[in-house]
Amino acid sequence: MSQSTTVAVIGTGVIGNGWIGRFLAQGLDVIAFDPAEGAEERTRQVIQQVWPSLEKLGLAEGASQKRLTFVPTIEEAVQNAAVIQENVPEREDIKKSVLTSIDQHAKPDAIIGSSTSGIMATTLQQGLQYPGRVIVAHPFNPVYLLPLVELVGGEETDTALMERAKAFYQSIEMKPLVINKEIEGHVADRLMEALWREALHLVNDGIATTEEIDAAIIYGAGLRWAQMGPFLTFHLAGGDQGMRHMLEQFGPALKKPWTKLEAPELTDELKEKVIEGCESHAGDVPISELEDKRNEFLVKLLDLVEDYWPQSKI
Amino acid sequence: MSQSTTVAVIGTGVIGNGWIGRFLAQGLDVIAFDPAEGAEERTRQVIQQVWPSLEKLGLAEGASQKRLTFVPTIEEAVQNAAVIQENVPEREDIKKSVLTSIDQHAKPDAIIGSSTSGIMATTLQQGLQYPGRVIVAHPFNPVYLLPLVELVGGEETDTALMERAKAFYQSIEMKPLVINKEIEGHVADRLMEALWREALHLVNDGIATTEEIDAAIIYGAGLRWAQMGPFLTFHLAGGDQGMRHMLEQFGPALKKPWTKLEAPELTDELKEKVIEGCESHAGDVPISELEDKRNEFLVKLLDLVEDYWPQSKI
Repeated sequence: MSQSTTVAVIGTGVIGNGWIGRFLAQGLDVIAFDPAEGAEERTRQVIQQVWPSLEKLGLAEGASQKRLTFVPTIEEAVQNAAVIQENVPEREDIKKSVLTSIDQHAKPDAIIGSSTSGIMATTLQQGLQYPGRVIVAHPFNPVYLLPLVELVGGEETDTALMERAKAFYQSIEMKPLVINKEIEGHVADRLMEALWREALHLVNDGIATTEEIDAAIIYGAGLRWAQMGPFLTFHLAGGDQGMRHMLEQFGPALKKPWTKLEAPELTDELKEKVIEGCESHAGDVPISELEDKRNEFLVKLLDLVEDYWPQSKI
Repeated sequence: MSQSTTVAVIGTGVIGNGWIGRFLAQGLDVIAFDPAEGAEERTRQVIQQVWPSLEKLGLAEGASQKRLTFVPTIEEAVQNAAVIQENVPEREDIKKSVLTSIDQHAKPDAIIGSSTSGIMATTLQQGLQYPGRVIVAHPFNPVYLLPLVELVGGEETDTALMERAKAFYQSIEMKPLVINKEIEGHVADRLMEALWREALHLVNDGIATTEEIDAAIIYGAGLRWAQMGPFLTFHLAGGDQGMRHMLEQFGPALKKPWTKLEAPELTDELKEKVIEGCESHAGDVPISELEDKRNEFLVKLLDLVEDYWPQSKI
């Protein structure tokens, strides 16, 4: 992405400001709009607070907090922008009204990404003049540090635009995950929300406190998930046979009340999808080598957790 | 824990071997039993493989792979052990039969911990001579590195024994989480299983591949959960108002089909439990300071992920 790229950020709450931090650190020009009283001041304060972290991660050439401009209208914000990131409150009526304004004033070839956590792109683009340039581009807090962005097109999204969008988000050091089937909550929030709801059940049923649940994740699954995700983690828990053995051993637990969530039927087809997925992901690397690498990583991560977080009472 | 403590490990699969690695690294004497052909050789190979990681993490004085002995009977394994860790296959009949043998030969004051992922302590201790010394002590793979161990007593578990057990697991550098209410799957596996089932649904419904799901966790939620767990993570996503604002903003999503798991009703009582839990966990530290600390941690963790894992195609 050229360093003269201009991006517009519409809505400067936690997520909008997170985008601004990332865009500025990547050496882009950012034009922001938010109608709330004092929005500009709050944003500049946030960016100043997080700048040292961004410096440590490495700034692009020319990156500067001075390349942020606030403007008083959506029109001025979007009219010269190559990419427009929408981050207004998570309500369909508000998002659609703002997207209509953006649609009126944006360049025809602009990429319009919505940070929505759950609304589908097809819904967002309905009725617009150029619906083909609208996608979901859903990031994770803190946006200036976390690399994941889910990209989901709607029925009317232009295929070539999605390719350009993917290249853009990659160019700002993100990991775009293109999801080809629209569902509410996309992929990452489905996973997070399942865990979150289960956690609320545990609190609600008096099984554990919020702090105990946090500890149960941090010192166990969390350390592993930062590293390999749930599937490859289980692939390594299966010994030399990997996921194939894992599913034999823990498949039956899917029938048990180990969560309030009903499991899908573990059909042969689903089994093969999961096993082949893991085996292809792991490639030719033997499990013992993956284990060595995992262990080196975990040793360093444990030191990090010890140094930084948390002062746990657990 | 004195360095002359002897621990017995019954069953030397992935989990049993993980315990052996941790016990040896902590300078304990380990006596192992497993009836499978070639078990001792496999265990010694595993321990040799993981020893460099244990060295990097730091060995206790006197720690040595030579302090591992295999014996041919349960009786010989447990008769002098202060702590006995049971890791036989996850089937109630097998576990109960093995625990009956352990019960016959163990010292009356020995701590008997079962690594069961899901069976309740009350079930395991039923019918034993000294049921009071049996607890669930559920670890996470790789046991020699991950600090979490869930301790759950049964109806007949002795309170003082649980205190001794907690002190023992702390002495070997673990984070024991004592759970006061027995449920199948305890706490951590409930959370993991909810996410795992949702992940299987996503694969089953053709929404994402296993590798995409792993990426969706690693580059987003996983990095955060390694750090703060789900509650404190959301506390920080709520801006200055923390969890209170978060629940206002994303509480309504609990009504949406964002996962296949039904959420509990977000009653005022549940809200307060969650908000107060987070506020008390965070203590007097202002959110902006928590953010600074989180950011420093994440910057280093991102470097680690980059260095070690994964060679992702995403």
